[in-house]
Amino acid sequence: MRRIAALVFPGFELLDLYGPLEMFGLCPDDFSITLVSEHSGPVASRAGPASLAELPLDDAIGHEILLVPGGPGTREEVDNEALTGWIAAAAAKAEIVASVCTGAALLARAGLLDGRRATTNKRAWAWATGQGPKVDWQAEARWVADGNLWTSSGVAAGTDMSLALIAELLGQETAEATANHAEYNWQRDPGRDPFAALYGLTG
Amino acid sequence: MRRIAALVFPGFELLDLYGPLEMFGLCPDDFSITLVSEHSGPVASRAGPASLAELPLDDAIGHEILLVPGGPGTREEVDNEALTGWIAAAAAKAEIVASVCTGAALLARAGLLDGRRATTNKRAWAWATGQGPKVDWQAEARWVADGNLWTSSGVAAGTDMSLALIAELLGQETAEATANHAEYNWQRDPGRDPFAALYGLTG
Repeated sequence: MRRIAALVFPGFELLDLYGPLEMFGLCPDDFSITLVSEHSGPVASRAGPASLAELPLDDAIGHEILLVPGGPGTREEVDNEALTGWIAAAAAKAEIVASVCTGAALLARAGLLDGRRATTNKRAWAWATGQGPKVDWQAEARWVADGNLWTSSGVAAGTDMSLALIAELLGQETAEATANHAEYNWQRDPGRDPFAALYGLTG
Repeated sequence: MRRIAALVFPGFELLDLYGPLEMFGLCPDDFSITLVSEHSGPVASRAGPASLAELPLDDAIGHEILLVPGGPGTREEVDNEALTGWIAAAAAKAEIVASVCTGAALLARAGLLDGRRATTNKRAWAWATGQGPKVDWQAEARWVADGNLWTSSGVAAGTDMSLALIAELLGQETAEATANHAEYNWQRDPGRDPFAALYGLTG
């Protein structure tokens, strides 16, 4: 059983968080999920609906998997040293660190991505990559795995990445069964990324 | 501005709810979102994480759009007459009623689907369709729109349906822009449903 600490902050993006948690949640014998935030309690998403964080950051160290979503709230949170400090500390003890969308900007500001290959949201590319000038950013990628650091492109890409992570940890058959359970058309190829061209990031 | 009442109940399925709310939430000038439940407060999903319902059912009548997710919790909720009664009453005043996955079983038990074309989860097909013996169930369909009643197949299908609903209400261009914003590979064809065959419901 691996424990997932899933970060939430004001203005997080719903599908960044809940696409991955849907897939992990369909493997209840293998993953448990806890929402964590700077202060425990309700945290409003960008779209409005609030999720309930069970643990404050100080009590959320030692989980095997750290999941960091993006969303417009990251624009403020990149300067929140309590948050980026926690990300760095939690990542040091985690087996896997995964981000979705502009969540990669938080990993970058936590110092985790320097010299590593990573990707992020294609529509917010300039801002997000600007948070990590020493990162080897990959423009055309649905997701990128570099060692134990998994980063995905915008919003929906996190769901595809999570299934690849399930394949890595539990095997391809379990990942396929999970996608089928959710009637999800899993995009299995991390290199296929039509949105990079759509947003003018590739030739 | 259309107001969406999005139902939650214990054991709701995360992506059933949050795939659609991601897409509607990316059109903040056109939709507002309120989570409603039998009693307001935290409501635990099937996977564990809780969402905060802002309104109890009695205060949630008159929204233009009613969104009903599925999940294992529907097995109990189909016998909850307070809930199905509210669904019937709220639907009578709504412009659009939409369900995802086994949420269709709740619509069926609320009496909304008799004589109408509808679809539901393919893996739980026998149970879900059994909740509405007078419904014209469509086995091979990603989603079905019959008048103002929109029903989708399992979990991830709700996201595709929601984009089609945005296209219907706001135009195709807005729906395409919304899918692109979320870097989502929108499956635009309601008749394309590989999961019907996978779960032995066709040919």
